[in-house]
Amino acid sequence: MSPMCCLINGRPDERVGVANRGLQYGDGLFETIAIQDGRLLLWSQHLDRLAIGASRLGLAAINRALLTAEATELAVGIQLGILKLMLVREASGRGYRPSSQEVDRILALWPWPARGVSAEGVDVMWCRTRLARQPQLAGIKHLNRLEQVLGQQELGSGHGEGLMQDTDGWVIAGTMSNVFLGERGALITPSLDYAGVAGVMRARVMDCAADLGIRVTIDGITRAHVLRADEIFLTNSVLGVCAVRSLPEREYGRGPIAQRIHEAIRACGDAAVS
Amino acid sequence: MSPMCCLINGRPDERVGVANRGLQYGDGLFETIAIQDGRLLLWSQHLDRLAIGASRLGLAAINRALLTAEATELAVGIQLGILKLMLVREASGRGYRPSSQEVDRILALWPWPARGVSAEGVDVMWCRTRLARQPQLAGIKHLNRLEQVLGQQELGSGHGEGLMQDTDGWVIAGTMSNVFLGERGALITPSLDYAGVAGVMRARVMDCAADLGIRVTIDGITRAHVLRADEIFLTNSVLGVCAVRSLPEREYGRGPIAQRIHEAIRACGDAAVS
Repeated sequence: MSPMCCLINGRPDERVGVANRGLQYGDGLFETIAIQDGRLLLWSQHLDRLAIGASRLGLAAINRALLTAEATELAVGIQLGILKLMLVREASGRGYRPSSQEVDRILALWPWPARGVSAEGVDVMWCRTRLARQPQLAGIKHLNRLEQVLGQQELGSGHGEGLMQDTDGWVIAGTMSNVFLGERGALITPSLDYAGVAGVMRARVMDCAADLGIRVTIDGITRAHVLRADEIFLTNSVLGVCAVRSLPEREYGRGPIAQRIHEAIRACGDAAVS
Repeated sequence: MSPMCCLINGRPDERVGVANRGLQYGDGLFETIAIQDGRLLLWSQHLDRLAIGASRLGLAAINRALLTAEATELAVGIQLGILKLMLVREASGRGYRPSSQEVDRILALWPWPARGVSAEGVDVMWCRTRLARQPQLAGIKHLNRLEQVLGQQELGSGHGEGLMQDTDGWVIAGTMSNVFLGERGALITPSLDYAGVAGVMRARVMDCAADLGIRVTIDGITRAHVLRADEIFLTNSVLGVCAVRSLPEREYGRGPIAQRIHEAIRACGDAAVS
């Protein structure tokens, strides 16, 4: 229920005041970072996304050196773990109106998830919960995550992830992952201009694909498109690259592109080997 | 920065753990209740809305007796104040997936806002921030409020409120209020099926209008429609009924409908006299 260790503005603490604007309004950002052998995987990419989010929400520019020092302190000696980092706009009494651009830093160390990623891939369902189309918040990892909670709430025990469409029917992402389709040796991944989070691992996969000479297209993706793909895989910073074994309508083989990319990213040390 | 007094699950406390799902995901609901002379205004209506919200988010049915006892305890002896009540889904470690329907109760007493409502009405601007269309969350008062924060962030010192449109252009609400247009002796207020919060004071105004023989229509409202209205007023539980004095495009007279309804609601003791 509690993190293994937590720093709030650099000091060991596990509690925040009720005026905290993350609690009151979700007025902040977060990152979920894999730690392996004391190393923060894809750390600078996580900071890059935080910087973009801070600018979008009207928060002060992030202090990369300070965040790096605090995150590194928590990661020391951790063989396998997760750092959840939150930047929350400073409290300012009651009311939506923000009186500050400054943020509180909450860095919490959590255990690696018990339920690992199966090598055989994951069985995925379609969520009934839709993602709203909100270009002002799309792409960034802000703290307003009720849609993801409602999506996860739908998952039965047999499903490791649920795919979510937006309110116009476009397939956007899993509840906690980005999605790629493999088709005739190339990759397609949904456009995130109107909904979804631009995952750090998603960006890493696109770079890796380029290095391997695999074409990647960003486009609108329909449910029918998903169902005719040769292979599907999911990505996030913790699970790395994870093949989809089935959707209710069909099964997929373990795709060759997912495998190549996962091996390449692991070889670079950017995805954890659990 | 801190509330005057706060009860968490019935005990005096002002801090929550960092695993709190309100902080992590905004996984909860809130109500903002005016207190006058120790009385919680429109209390049972606030509980009714909480009950609807709990059902929509998959939370346990609210305990009305317990919430009433705790809220009443905080309100004792308060001449004019605000109770902010939050119901947050019980913490359950890291990850979107909820493992419980139970909630933590956070009841905080805040001072009445210094900036009162001017009898001359309020000057209002148009927010650039749009509200996403999300029927699954529309109407309820959940904790995902970044759109309202971004809207309030736009307000200059000369504007007491900003009107927000949804991403399709429909006028939905103020950042912290509902809106009514007066036209030829009748009222129109926006449909909240896709965005916005169904305000407790909005419902009270509609009941009051019916009692006074004033017709109220709920409908889609365009910006042009707002600009040709005879009068406009805003409502919420704290400000009651507040006439709009101006939008950038035009000025409005102090409307007769707003005045009649405000007086009637105050006479019933459902809006505070500050």
